[in-house]
Amino acid sequence: MPARFQIGDHLPQLVEKIIDSYNSDPRTRHINRAYMPSRSEIIEIIHLLLELAFPGFFGRQNLNQHNVNFHVGEMLPKIGEKLYEQIYQELCYQQENGNGRKNQNQQGQSSCEEKARQITLEFLERIPDIRKLLATDVQAAYDGDPAARNTDEVILAYPGVLAVSIYRFAHELHKMNVPLVARIMTEWAHTATGVDIHPGATIGSHFFIDHATGVVVGETTDIGDYVKLYQGVTLGAMSFPKDERGRLIRGYKRHPTVENNVTIYANATVLGGETKLGEGSVVNGSVFLTAGIPANATVSMKAPELKVRKRRTRETNKQTKAENY
Amino acid sequence: MPARFQIGDHLPQLVEKIIDSYNSDPRTRHINRAYMPSRSEIIEIIHLLLELAFPGFFGRQNLNQHNVNFHVGEMLPKIGEKLYEQIYQELCYQQENGNGRKNQNQQGQSSCEEKARQITLEFLERIPDIRKLLATDVQAAYDGDPAARNTDEVILAYPGVLAVSIYRFAHELHKMNVPLVARIMTEWAHTATGVDIHPGATIGSHFFIDHATGVVVGETTDIGDYVKLYQGVTLGAMSFPKDERGRLIRGYKRHPTVENNVTIYANATVLGGETKLGEGSVVNGSVFLTAGIPANATVSMKAPELKVRKRRTRETNKQTKAENY
Amino acid sequence: MPARFQIGDHLPQLVEKIIDSYNSDPRTRHINRAYMPSRSEIIEIIHLLLELAFPGFFGRQNLNQHNVNFHVGEMLPKIGEKLYEQIYQELCYQQENGNGRKNQNQQGQSSCEEKARQITLEFLERIPDIRKLLATDVQAAYDGDPAARNTDEVILAYPGVLAVSIYRFAHELHKMNVPLVARIMTEWAHTATGVDIHPGATIGSHFFIDHATGVVVGETTDIGDYVKLYQGVTLGAMSFPKDERGRLIRGYKRHPTVENNVTIYANATVLGGETKLGEGSVVNGSVFLTAGIPANATVSMKAPELKVRKRRTRETNKQTKAENY
Repeated sequence: MPARFQIGDHLPQLVEKIIDSYNSDPRTRHINRAYMPSRSEIIEIIHLLLELAFPGFFGRQNLNQHNVNFHVGEMLPKIGEKLYEQIYQELCYQQENGNGRKNQNQQGQSSCEEKARQITLEFLERIPDIRKLLATDVQAAYDGDPAARNTDEVILAYPGVLAVSIYRFAHELHKMNVPLVARIMTEWAHTATGVDIHPGATIGSHFFIDHATGVVVGETTDIGDYVKLYQGVTLGAMSFPKDERGRLIRGYKRHPTVENNVTIYANATVLGGETKLGEGSVVNGSVFLTAGIPANATVSMKAPELKVRKRRTRETNKQTKAENY
Repeated sequence: MPARFQIGDHLPQLVEKIIDSYNSDPRTRHINRAYMPSRSEIIEIIHLLLELAFPGFFGRQNLNQHNVNFHVGEMLPKIGEKLYEQIYQELCYQQENGNGRKNQNQQGQSSCEEKARQITLEFLERIPDIRKLLATDVQAAYDGDPAARNTDEVILAYPGVLAVSIYRFAHELHKMNVPLVARIMTEWAHTATGVDIHPGATIGSHFFIDHATGVVVGETTDIGDYVKLYQGVTLGAMSFPKDERGRLIRGYKRHPTVENNVTIYANATVLGGETKLGEGSVVNGSVFLTAGIPANATVSMKAPELKVRKRRTRETNKQTKAENY
Repeated sequence: MPARFQIGDHLPQLVEKIIDSYNSDPRTRHINRAYMPSRSEIIEIIHLLLELAFPGFFGRQNLNQHNVNFHVGEMLPKIGEKLYEQIYQELCYQQENGNGRKNQNQQGQSSCEEKARQITLEFLERIPDIRKLLATDVQAAYDGDPAARNTDEVILAYPGVLAVSIYRFAHELHKMNVPLVARIMTEWAHTATGVDIHPGATIGSHFFIDHATGVVVGETTDIGDYVKLYQGVTLGAMSFPKDERGRLIRGYKRHPTVENNVTIYANATVLGGETKLGEGSVVNGSVFLTAGIPANATVSMKAPELKVRKRRTRETNKQTKAENY
């Protein structure tokens, strides 16, 4: 074993340099500010919500009709307390930022408390409705993938279902004015699955992302019911207009509208706030689309022009005729 | 600190609503059913298998010829017990689902026990053979990537090697009729790496996925020896035929066949169960392919037609000639 | 509960087979060798570095001007010790490999100790400069994404910022001759985010990857200031020349050069060590590029040729005219 590292008399000046570095730029420090949601707490909440939403699949097993309501009776206050704390942090954080004051007054704090309580309760009330949507997503995954054996497998193993479930919880919080907590949730799902759904997007029932990875669904995307995406699909923005001071304009519709029963195959890119994919339309693989298509249309790349070159093999040196393709 | 959230007298009705929600849809609950593999246990098993497969690289360090067989003698029973439990759960789960009965009879349970024991032992017996294949994958990664300094770096750091290693374990379990445990394994690898290899795919020796992310290898893909994939490659299905009742037909060959010594470059998409890439063929980057190519052929996009537009810069306003490209 | 699995008298022969398997191939074992960096320790170091770099955002909250220097004074020695141990391991590991001896001599070990001490201290000294660069990346993310509400959200939630931050730490270690520790860091970021930046790449200030997933930045890439990438972008190599013995040539420039103020949109692929994207140039979505473009040029795919086919709907059977697109 090596001798342990002794930072020794270097410590005071190293600390000083780091503190100077903190003092020199407000953007990368969060010091002398009272409020901030906690990423690690929010990740815990995600796991508790998944356990509550899909009982017996994640977390505690062996639930039955005798123990299940004790289990729910234990989980709900736990989720409520943790969620309340994060919502409270974000509301006070919003207030602190808005007021630009270091010490918010008592009024402000108690108003965060009251609002956080309301939002937490309302969120818990909505869980049964969220679960209804989740059941449609689970069914859509089973109906859409010949490799799925049953809906249990879909819940236990499909990252697309995981990402969409977390999005559905986050979307409710986003609507209830807790956008940072919501975003931390979906971005955790993004790192866990490679699926980046902004919590501001609206998505109908029966939504399925197969082989979920590399998928982007932008903030102002509108998606109908029974929509199916494959890996690598982007529903994105085209370009970002700036104001007269050269800053991005934020908050306008800049991502596509996707109507009911649309399918978008692997690695297709659909861009722009004016772009509408009509009901029942199909976007084939690798298509790059910046304008809408009508209902029931199928859009494909023109017969992909490919060049095939035949190499002579060292061993045989014989010529082989290209097959028909 | 804010006052703690008190769910108070809202609790009984909130619990009731959640329980009603559980009762209303069987798909998203797993209640009153005795068996189900555990995702978190399976993730632990993955880590133990990686430690056993690559001794000294993951988990315990400082192994030497004196302590290594005590280490293996400790790990094997641990892996065996954990794996047995999950295999047992899946076998009984299959039986429970198949029988449609809530309480399986004693016969059923003891038959799960016996089969689970056999499968567990057989799996443990196969580990040396799996390790032989893993050594070929490690070598292929080193031989295929100029950025790799040595095979140690490949084992410690390459997500492609991680995903393929987990696939190799899962594939054995898939063949031994434990498909759900196998799928949970590969889907964990999928979320960890962005590489989605179905445990049903068959893959020869010396398999390497470089910059592994966004890769899909479907359930019925056949891959030979010495095959190399890059990021974003899909080996997928073309379309899903349905039966007369409008349900997907499952279980037929719908993904490509890739012969020995094939290389498929970044973001290429190869689709269809009839599609065969002949021995030694090369699919270049971003190619979209729905038909086979002969042995030793190279397929590329036709000289990509690009439009280059030159902007005047605000500062200089001078015209620059486009370079040769 | 099932009877527990008893490996029983199978154990000795199973252990023997595994040990035989270890003995038969040196590539997949790390036994009888003294040194090796630890992946799990390095992951802990990453989290500590992020906490130090973005105080109040990750890890400990509620920092203020009174407690912050005690906090830093506690963190620095902890990071120093852990980092020292890993650097020491890698340096001795390099020596052990280079010498081909099993037991390095005392001289070798104490020289690792001394060098590891120097590198650790120098790395800690550089943290303020790394933090300056990180602040530019955070600003670039805010300036580049209309969905970002403020820079706090960018730090807390953007995987692109996470991946680039880890790359910036790893790049310093890479330059200080600890490439394996550096690579394990960036590959952890790769699995966490789907962004694969080799620690050897050089990247200027104000670097932003939006919707970060499926991105590859190769080892010898040179990137200027104010560069913006989107999801699915590859800055890769074109082909790998081999030496006369058929082995890859390693270490030459094989990835693109990207000058200041370049933007590369989603899923574009840019390949080759000779390929230079001139200052202020733009590569549009899905472009496949193997040659350079001049300053201020914009390169796009030629108006993507798409085929639109209209299906008759079962319900109405009416013909709809294709919209204008």
